[in-house]
Amino acid sequence: MYRPEIKVLDCTIRDGGLINDHLFDDRLVRAVYQACSAAGVDYIELGYRASKKYFTAGKFGETKFLEEAFVRRMIDGIESKSKLSAMVDIGRVDAEDIPLKKDSVVDLMRVACYVKDIDKAIALVKQCADKGYETTVNIMAVSTALVPDLEEGLKQLAECPLKAVYVVDSFGAMFSEQIHFLTNLYKGILNPKGIEVGIHCHNNQQLGFANTIEAVRKGANYLDATIYGIGRAAGNCPLELLLAFLKNPKFKLDPILEIIEKEFIPLRQQIEWGYMIPDMITGILNQHPRSAMEMRSGKGSKRFVELYRSLLNDGELA
Amino acid sequence: MYRPEIKVLDCTIRDGGLINDHLFDDRLVRAVYQACSAAGVDYIELGYRASKKYFTAGKFGETKFLEEAFVRRMIDGIESKSKLSAMVDIGRVDAEDIPLKKDSVVDLMRVACYVKDIDKAIALVKQCADKGYETTVNIMAVSTALVPDLEEGLKQLAECPLKAVYVVDSFGAMFSEQIHFLTNLYKGILNPKGIEVGIHCHNNQQLGFANTIEAVRKGANYLDATIYGIGRAAGNCPLELLLAFLKNPKFKLDPILEIIEKEFIPLRQQIEWGYMIPDMITGILNQHPRSAMEMRSGKGSKRFVELYRSLLNDGELA
Repeated sequence: MYRPEIKVLDCTIRDGGLINDHLFDDRLVRAVYQACSAAGVDYIELGYRASKKYFTAGKFGETKFLEEAFVRRMIDGIESKSKLSAMVDIGRVDAEDIPLKKDSVVDLMRVACYVKDIDKAIALVKQCADKGYETTVNIMAVSTALVPDLEEGLKQLAECPLKAVYVVDSFGAMFSEQIHFLTNLYKGILNPKGIEVGIHCHNNQQLGFANTIEAVRKGANYLDATIYGIGRAAGNCPLELLLAFLKNPKFKLDPILEIIEKEFIPLRQQIEWGYMIPDMITGILNQHPRSAMEMRSGKGSKRFVELYRSLLNDGELA
Repeated sequence: MYRPEIKVLDCTIRDGGLINDHLFDDRLVRAVYQACSAAGVDYIELGYRASKKYFTAGKFGETKFLEEAFVRRMIDGIESKSKLSAMVDIGRVDAEDIPLKKDSVVDLMRVACYVKDIDKAIALVKQCADKGYETTVNIMAVSTALVPDLEEGLKQLAECPLKAVYVVDSFGAMFSEQIHFLTNLYKGILNPKGIEVGIHCHNNQQLGFANTIEAVRKGANYLDATIYGIGRAAGNCPLELLLAFLKNPKFKLDPILEIIEKEFIPLRQQIEWGYMIPDMITGILNQHPRSAMEMRSGKGSKRFVELYRSLLNDGELA
């Protein structure tokens, strides 16, 4: 039986944009919005809401900034019951650049932060909530956080006007035990305040989908996924697997299968994501994928074993 | 902490051979044997032990038949503490073609069968055991078996001279609940007789590794995996992920990373395995991958949605 509280959030364009500096064709952005709307996805995240003044002009595509006129152009004429979300990073956006919700088609602002930045995240959450948006917080790289720090942060977040706080396995390092532990920890602190637990997994160990559904089993109700698993490095939980698993009849698989065939299989020939050994190595060692991405771009380690040994730091190649 | 009872079995050449009619170069077979030996893998399965008289001459490579002289040539001069296994299929081998263990370098005969053929499997197990081999049974496609039939079969198997009986998710259709249920069911019947539970997973839903370690959590001790996940259709649990997960210091990851880089990344350009949408569709519907393989070979359905709808059999495309 399905849980009606479950919300699926597609972040194809947002997480996928980390591969290509957010330089997707408008046509693809619209196609993703259309397919996810037809599939019954609850939220569609079209990118980051960064302030242009903090970035070199022309380096990034429009989905890094999600200015209001751009978002309206992307959704224009497409029938949809889905809500729109945007991710906001601490220090990369000025609240004054975010319009009031009444002037925006965006519904949800998702604040991304590390445990150490929860105070800054709370300030940004309050600014967004004051403007009228729904808000969530994604606590990144939680596989490296110390539990007392995390608990203290969650207790502060529990007092905020939030829809959900996400467990984010940025390094693709966690197994079901860790997912169960963290989902229970978040739930115990947040649910009594009416805040849901979310889950955002990476696929370095081919556990993106598995860990997402393990979080569901423990009560996570906000679920991130991307079409064909697109996303930085090893990518994310594939939306098509998640929709097939969830039993809610409001979700339709056909539009996602169609867009994979038409757009994402060709796109995978142009840009790289999914299970790859360099990113598997950073995953098993619970490390940032930086060194894996460097290796794949031709910098850094030249051989898999060299990367593995250098990250183990056991001196054998020193 | 690690469980010393755990045995890892590499079936790279055997399951991978289902993609290419077992036509691997001798050089690759030897390289796999060498890498798995250096990695500390407990058993290495170099193919099937089929009788040549049942097959058209020349159609299949030598790893389908594993005649004694061939196996000895493959391992000649390579240092190894690993045992050798061969898979035997009901009706495709005559016991008289299998030499006595005292005349063979093979240690373990793995009998593969469906639930309906357990009686035949038991006869073959006894013949192999009488010749002096270790034996296991792999009950295939158990995601479609009825529990009373399975229980009856397991009770019969519990009386046989077996090392292990495997839960085999041939269709890549199961989730952790089903893996937990079946591992517990097998364990309850087999462990009291000193027989271990094994696990062999396919990756149609990107759950091959996840389900393998879920079975480990419930007490499975014989674990199948393949290098870089090679295997029919969606492939198998990747050996590199499994070895990294297991904490037993006897396992070494380096030789597997080396052979992936040198052999399996180039090989993946020549033959196809891994997460692919047609096989994901058969997986989510708990069906044989036949129709997915037909589609990928250019026969059968031409579009993902057409395959999905035809297997759902809901008449929309009828």
